[in-house]
Amino acid sequence: MRVVDLIRKKRDGGRLSREEIEHVIAGSVDRSIADYQLAALLMAIVLRGMDGQETAWLTAAMARSGEQLDLSSIPGPKVDKHSTGGVGDKTSLVLAPLAAACGLLVPMMSGRGLGHTGGTLDKLESIPGFSVALDEARLREGLCRVGCVIMGQTDTLAPADRRLYALRDVTGTVESIPLITASIMSKKIAEGIEGLVLDVKVGRGAFMKTVEAARELARAMVVAGTHAGVRTEAVLTSMDAPLGRAVGNALEVIEAVATLRGCGPDDLERLCVRLTAQMLVVGGIAPDVIDGEHRARRALSSGAGLEKLREMVAFQGGNPRVLDDTGGLVVAPLREVVTAARTGVITAIDAEAIGRATGLLGAGRDTAGAPVDHAAGAILLHRPGDRVSAGEPLVELHYRSVDRLSPARRLAAEAFVIGEDRPAEAPLVLEVIVAG
Amino acid sequence: MRVVDLIRKKRDGGRLSREEIEHVIAGSVDRSIADYQLAALLMAIVLRGMDGQETAWLTAAMARSGEQLDLSSIPGPKVDKHSTGGVGDKTSLVLAPLAAACGLLVPMMSGRGLGHTGGTLDKLESIPGFSVALDEARLREGLCRVGCVIMGQTDTLAPADRRLYALRDVTGTVESIPLITASIMSKKIAEGIEGLVLDVKVGRGAFMKTVEAARELARAMVVAGTHAGVRTEAVLTSMDAPLGRAVGNALEVIEAVATLRGCGPDDLERLCVRLTAQMLVVGGIAPDVIDGEHRARRALSSGAGLEKLREMVAFQGGNPRVLDDTGGLVVAPLREVVTAARTGVITAIDAEAIGRATGLLGAGRDTAGAPVDHAAGAILLHRPGDRVSAGEPLVELHYRSVDRLSPARRLAAEAFVIGEDRPAEAPLVLEVIVAG
Repeated sequence: MRVVDLIRKKRDGGRLSREEIEHVIAGSVDRSIADYQLAALLMAIVLRGMDGQETAWLTAAMARSGEQLDLSSIPGPKVDKHSTGGVGDKTSLVLAPLAAACGLLVPMMSGRGLGHTGGTLDKLESIPGFSVALDEARLREGLCRVGCVIMGQTDTLAPADRRLYALRDVTGTVESIPLITASIMSKKIAEGIEGLVLDVKVGRGAFMKTVEAARELARAMVVAGTHAGVRTEAVLTSMDAPLGRAVGNALEVIEAVATLRGCGPDDLERLCVRLTAQMLVVGGIAPDVIDGEHRARRALSSGAGLEKLREMVAFQGGNPRVLDDTGGLVVAPLREVVTAARTGVITAIDAEAIGRATGLLGAGRDTAGAPVDHAAGAILLHRPGDRVSAGEPLVELHYRSVDRLSPARRLAAEAFVIGEDRPAEAPLVLEVIVAG
Repeated sequence: MRVVDLIRKKRDGGRLSREEIEHVIAGSVDRSIADYQLAALLMAIVLRGMDGQETAWLTAAMARSGEQLDLSSIPGPKVDKHSTGGVGDKTSLVLAPLAAACGLLVPMMSGRGLGHTGGTLDKLESIPGFSVALDEARLREGLCRVGCVIMGQTDTLAPADRRLYALRDVTGTVESIPLITASIMSKKIAEGIEGLVLDVKVGRGAFMKTVEAARELARAMVVAGTHAGVRTEAVLTSMDAPLGRAVGNALEVIEAVATLRGCGPDDLERLCVRLTAQMLVVGGIAPDVIDGEHRARRALSSGAGLEKLREMVAFQGGNPRVLDDTGGLVVAPLREVVTAARTGVITAIDAEAIGRATGLLGAGRDTAGAPVDHAAGAILLHRPGDRVSAGEPLVELHYRSVDRLSPARRLAAEAFVIGEDRPAEAPLVLEVIVAG
């Protein structure tokens, strides 16, 4: 099998066979295929696409490219959640403990942020002492003792994805539904889970700007997961405005804790309960989402979810006392309030602009491996639909250095659209995609 | 300027600017752009295309990537010819001396064959002593003393093409009109010529299978040449059956010499006269093709063309006596005659099949740098339109080893289509493409 022939086949719109796809993935791991050949093939895939079957084969080959965890000796349903990423998205911090409190085992492997804001691991690392570097033995111990852990991807899972992703990043081949699907799903499948809930974000602050694009990605991921024996369901959720009111690492931890105390922002609480319910359905604990939501709400109001987070933080080396007194978290030395230029109703808050503003303040990173400022971020003082007067504070920026305050301020101000009429209430959950 | 942004722009169907194209070519020569980024960009160009202006910019940037010959101190019009390659195509060996005999200066830089049959350089090297490795001083001397030389590409011209071509060859990105155009035309422009005639082959034995595809390539090349100040005209010519009767290196030299003596195959003579006439028009020596054909025929019948070939062979170190007695050329020790399976009229001879057969016998090479057997090849004993009886010889194969005779024999036999009715006479020149 010559790689150049496979490249030409895909270039001409052909369909790669299972054997051909496995040959490419094996060659990308043992480096028998050159970077330039992989790059040409990736671009051909971006422009010619892959059908559901090819995508599933690619996903499976990548999942098998390294170690695959076998958690079957630990009794109980293992279910994870993955979000395609949004601004202010701290749901993992809420729903992993909530789902564990309801009886699921959640071996959540998460990522660091690249771009506007930190990822789930960055957020958790704002808790003093918290370690996201668990090995397989500690993962197993955490599932047995706590029921949930949130950790970094181990190097042994899906190594093909690491090589391909590094290449995609510098060759303009990131934006492709089959490649995104295989990248996300191969790592999840290698985790050894039985069920997976995908939170596919749609809107101005999301990678997928339209419901159609999000639906296509969700379907491809559901097909690939199901093909690999993982019960996979996707929820399309709105990401026009930031989720909740806090954007930034420590600020989002504070908001997640508040939510587990029952006093979080309404949109965040509703989404966490909904996604937890979907996880309970996928894991076979709840017969349907309505029953799942009841269970999730009980775990929230009883404090069982907060207790699980406390156990998880302690297990992973963090100081659990910051959950009671968030004064133990790092705080930005400087604040700047952005006020309303006119009187009216907030018709929209552009999540992407808020994300870019907090990125400029240091909450995110431009290059992989760069540090993030855990204290930097923004607190939205108003939500879409609120009536405000000219001069009234809209958002509070938290920062350490004035270096990039000016463009951040401008972005934050422009994110708020003030009009005359109250906007229609947008539904949080737009669609659910299941297999078949 | 970040290369990944240029890749993304082309991936999304955008148009690269002149500065962006120049940045890519500069980076491919100084190796500041990685192979994998070039490969991804090349695939995006294959699938998204380039308009005429982008192609002309790419061509010009590649032409300027190395040394550019300045032949302006040598008086007289410098005109070259380039053929996209066909089976039995020995026109260069005839028309370079013919055009020089008519007053043109022909600094022809040619290539070696890759695939079925040898290239012009391989053919010339079957003449004992002939050297295709001339430096610039010898090229100038040859133009002043003889009027024509046929030599290999020097390493200093268009180095960007060498890097890109090596990459295209292994990444499935050869088949692209803008990339083919830039590859061919950048080298020709760097030769310092004032005029160029392109012989774009169309048909079963050519790279371009349809008139539409050939026309598109011809137009792109004419635009790119004109843009660079080289008067460029393209002639679309038929390549269904092999050109002439000889296929192979020494065998084609013999046929070229016969043609310059006025006793070559009719199709080859007509094409050489036609292309020489076009060169005379492009070089400003003939006002039109009809006048050009008169001049070319006079140089043929007077023996002036053969005399020029003799001078060129002597100048380039070859033994000119083989032109009078071709017994001095290498001869294959073995012959095999393929006969007609039935009685009828030859309706077609598949040039590609004949090319592959002679390739199997050793006339071509599979990998760059491999040697060719100058003696191997085939002599067609009949042409399309000839009536043959069952058992009558169709083609004589010349070879050295029986190793691959059997598949070569089969291919040669299958190349001849024998039917009932005489095929319509196909025109040799299908179309002429000029600027504007």
